[in-house]
Amino acid sequence: MNERRISRFGEPPEAELPDDIAAIYAKNRERVGFVPNVFRAYARRPEHFRAFMQYHDVLMKGDGGLTRAEREAIVVAVSAENRCQYCVTAHGAALRVIGKDAIVAEQIAINWRTADISPRWHAMLAFASHVNETGFAATDAEIEELRAAGFSDDDVWDIAAIAAFFGFSNRMAGALDMRPNPEFYTMGRG
Amino acid sequence: MNERRISRFGEPPEAELPDDIAAIYAKNRERVGFVPNVFRAYARRPEHFRAFMQYHDVLMKGDGGLTRAEREAIVVAVSAENRCQYCVTAHGAALRVIGKDAIVAEQIAINWRTADISPRWHAMLAFASHVNETGFAATDAEIEELRAAGFSDDDVWDIAAIAAFFGFSNRMAGALDMRPNPEFYTMGRG
Amino acid sequence: MNERRISRFGEPPEAELPDDIAAIYAKNRERVGFVPNVFRAYARRPEHFRAFMQYHDVLMKGDGGLTRAEREAIVVAVSAENRCQYCVTAHGAALRVIGKDAIVAEQIAINWRTADISPRWHAMLAFASHVNETGFAATDAEIEELRAAGFSDDDVWDIAAIAAFFGFSNRMAGALDMRPNPEFYTMGRG
Amino acid sequence: MNERRISRFGEPPEAELPDDIAAIYAKNRERVGFVPNVFRAYARRPEHFRAFMQYHDVLMKGDGGLTRAEREAIVVAVSAENRCQYCVTAHGAALRVIGKDAIVAEQIAINWRTADISPRWHAMLAFASHVNETGFAATDAEIEELRAAGFSDDDVWDIAAIAAFFGFSNRMAGALDMRPNPEFYTMGRG
Amino acid sequence: MNERRISRFGEPPEAELPDDIAAIYAKNRERVGFVPNVFRAYARRPEHFRAFMQYHDVLMKGDGGLTRAEREAIVVAVSAENRCQYCVTAHGAALRVIGKDAIVAEQIAINWRTADISPRWHAMLAFASHVNETGFAATDAEIEELRAAGFSDDDVWDIAAIAAFFGFSNRMAGALDMRPNPEFYTMGRG
Amino acid sequence: MNERRISRFGEPPEAELPDDIAAIYAKNRERVGFVPNVFRAYARRPEHFRAFMQYHDVLMKGDGGLTRAEREAIVVAVSAENRCQYCVTAHGAALRVIGKDAIVAEQIAINWRTADISPRWHAMLAFASHVNETGFAATDAEIEELRAAGFSDDDVWDIAAIAAFFGFSNRMAGALDMRPNPEFYTMGRG
Repeated sequence: MNERRISRFGEPPEAELPDDIAAIYAKNRERVGFVPNVFRAYARRPEHFRAFMQYHDVLMKGDGGLTRAEREAIVVAVSAENRCQYCVTAHGAALRVIGKDAIVAEQIAINWRTADISPRWHAMLAFASHVNETGFAATDAEIEELRAAGFSDDDVWDIAAIAAFFGFSNRMAGALDMRPNPEFYTMGRG
Repeated sequence: MNERRISRFGEPPEAELPDDIAAIYAKNRERVGFVPNVFRAYARRPEHFRAFMQYHDVLMKGDGGLTRAEREAIVVAVSAENRCQYCVTAHGAALRVIGKDAIVAEQIAINWRTADISPRWHAMLAFASHVNETGFAATDAEIEELRAAGFSDDDVWDIAAIAAFFGFSNRMAGALDMRPNPEFYTMGRG
Repeated sequence: MNERRISRFGEPPEAELPDDIAAIYAKNRERVGFVPNVFRAYARRPEHFRAFMQYHDVLMKGDGGLTRAEREAIVVAVSAENRCQYCVTAHGAALRVIGKDAIVAEQIAINWRTADISPRWHAMLAFASHVNETGFAATDAEIEELRAAGFSDDDVWDIAAIAAFFGFSNRMAGALDMRPNPEFYTMGRG
Repeated sequence: MNERRISRFGEPPEAELPDDIAAIYAKNRERVGFVPNVFRAYARRPEHFRAFMQYHDVLMKGDGGLTRAEREAIVVAVSAENRCQYCVTAHGAALRVIGKDAIVAEQIAINWRTADISPRWHAMLAFASHVNETGFAATDAEIEELRAAGFSDDDVWDIAAIAAFFGFSNRMAGALDMRPNPEFYTMGRG
Repeated sequence: MNERRISRFGEPPEAELPDDIAAIYAKNRERVGFVPNVFRAYARRPEHFRAFMQYHDVLMKGDGGLTRAEREAIVVAVSAENRCQYCVTAHGAALRVIGKDAIVAEQIAINWRTADISPRWHAMLAFASHVNETGFAATDAEIEELRAAGFSDDDVWDIAAIAAFFGFSNRMAGALDMRPNPEFYTMGRG
Repeated sequence: MNERRISRFGEPPEAELPDDIAAIYAKNRERVGFVPNVFRAYARRPEHFRAFMQYHDVLMKGDGGLTRAEREAIVVAVSAENRCQYCVTAHGAALRVIGKDAIVAEQIAINWRTADISPRWHAMLAFASHVNETGFAATDAEIEELRAAGFSDDDVWDIAAIAAFFGFSNRMAGALDMRPNPEFYTMGRG
């Protein structure tokens, strides 16, 4: 097997990182034991790094009616449809850890339509999958169905925003040929 | 014709806007004479508003080798492929104004493949269109071609990032049923 | 910008035009101020010119229950789905003029599904769009829905015939690389 | 098996046909022994009947560099891709008779790509198939290849026009649920 | 026309065939007058030949609630969707003979959706066609509809198995460029 | 999480299994510690069970130029494209064990195009992926490329046969809603 690279355009030397980005590297090493390659790849463009991470945190850690596991499930389902090597691996690991059901996490990474999920998750992922299609425009009927399934307007917004933002992220990973850290493959499997 | 709405989820009362967002409304009224509906729709979620606008500005106004017109051309070409009512209209107007060729702007809004554009723009939009496809992952050969056409690694990054970010934006407009302001239809036609 | 050509295969010298075609050139100059490039391109093959124009006139000006604006709306919606540079531009102009609502005309040119149109127009364009798909064959249920929306059998025929004929015309424009006259871009914008 | 109908919208009584259409019925009965259902179905709208038949004859019987068998081969290949019940049956019969090779005719009706045809026919049908795709616009390189294969500009026009016109005809047959006459199934099989 | 080959990789000399395969050749010559090319092509790999024929016979001749004609109809409908030159020709002939309605057999070979078939056959072929799609996974609702149409669980299994097995067979024919015997074209046409 | 079922149509009581199938259950329990659900599901139809397993063994264990790991890689790549819950899980596990590189196995399960594989594997999986498409028919040029990459005619046959047979198997799993045994998720991860 070839040595695995970080990304097509490499990564900047750590000594040259701006302080805020160096601090994020340090925090990741402390918390999860390594720096995810998405940080290393984006560090090449500090302004892009900051904008990406800020938006990411609003979507994945911000206020809202969706649980952390639900947000990760949307990312994994959409990334699987886009066949994104980096995001299925990294967020698949996150979903195994956060969702506390490694089998369901794996099933969503293969095909959410045949995963053992609740009706709420099915409705949520069906909408996320629709958002991910080319030419998506929600119909009023579709929004009504989501409301009937218990989702608020802001929940609908969040499902759409997470699905669409990671479609963006999947494409950046595809442009940069971003490679998953080996650590992700074993996280949350115990 | 029905009255045109801002978005499916409405807009917040202006009196309740946070100061930074109220300032952006004011600046838009001063500069272009109206508040684009994307601001009104996003104002419902101030944290999302700020994250979106910050990333938008990095991509559209940040440093880089692509001209302002080239960046808008990518947005229009991708938004046309995604058939986004809001983005084709608003960024079509921007491209007419910034690109100073209303006919070419219109052609890109219909089909960049048959627009009267330079080989550089053709290579740029062909890559942006590829980024926009489901399951996109760039091949090394494709990146080499872009380099041969004069694009730097950061240019490649920027084309991909603009194309993919507006694919995200197109989907948010589709989820929110975001409607273009009437003013956009006539801008830059003189 | 490159000089814009009429079509890939050029146009015949006006001095050599058959009388009936020369008369049509003259009438167009008188009425709209220029000769649409579709005439110039087809004039290379007079028998094709005549057959095309005769069928065009039966469909667009013949008896039937559809208004002139409705017929143009079908042409614009289908041409947009086929991304035909010539037809979206020329018939988009016609729809702005005939339909007397430049904004709705523009919306249909981008995406009829999110345009501000009546339920009747939505049913009409949904059927036209279905006709335009590869492998189209109408189901009885679909025809019943059109009847319930107030369309007669001949209306159904006309929607299908206009949608399908302009799918043919779109493909001829794509084969000939037919270019819109610059005049079309500004017609009906006032 | 259900009784086979002519078309969804029926056919007019023969006693009420205009003279020119009645004459075409008579000529068909004399020459091939029956009136093809496309005539019966179109007779409901005499102006459409006349426009369709005139254009049909320009394309299929007019001057040009393509043989009659080549023109029918284009119709069969495109109609097969559109899965048109009426046109594959009726023009499949015509190709068996005119092309004088019933096996190759049958092969083209199934899949021209794996039919036993000459390089000239392969180039011709590959272009016709491209014309038939949604969003078709010929590239200059593609036209050059056709010229290199011996096709003139008017031949390119004719291939495109026949392919696109029968895509229109296929869709009309799909709208009208036009049914093939039983006689077509056995013609040219001897 | 070029000489028609058996398959891309030829066929083994008959003198070298294993006894069981030679016996099958002999039986075919006796019963239908020739050895179908699928046998000749597979004879190159005797273990594959035997596995293919055993499974084929379980599906097409084994116990079950579907008639022989129904099984052949599934094969023809799926092979037509996969545009398989060998299978549409060979199984189209079988359906003409077994189904005793050459016209309906031909219609299914063109497009089962517009063929003159019973509601039972329509439900059966609609499910077979769904099975044939990439990414197929049956929904519970779809299975319920089949039960409501009178199909047992084993019937559902058999429709799926026949549809999917011949999708496999179609692809093998496409890999081997397997050519139909000329005899198939005229069988069952009388 | 819901209790996971074997398949939509259940499984037969073990006491009623034919001896040969009971022996296969016993052998699996001895070797891998459990009976894969594909056996349990197919045991409902013993003749289908036997035909499936015989063909499976010819393809996966028979003579030929492809290694065991290569054969499993084809199964995983195709099953991932068909998004088959059962086959990606069960054969993903097999590839981790047999291929001795769990990371590459995981990468192929996500997207073989961006996996860290050799040029030989890339050519092999590109062909397998092409076989898996609807309407596949190999071109001579494609076969020549495979020969140039070192594959014999029988290797080409085997790649196609494995890819197509598991496309069949994927569809059966989709029809039966076949569920992976929990054991597969952790196999070969150590």
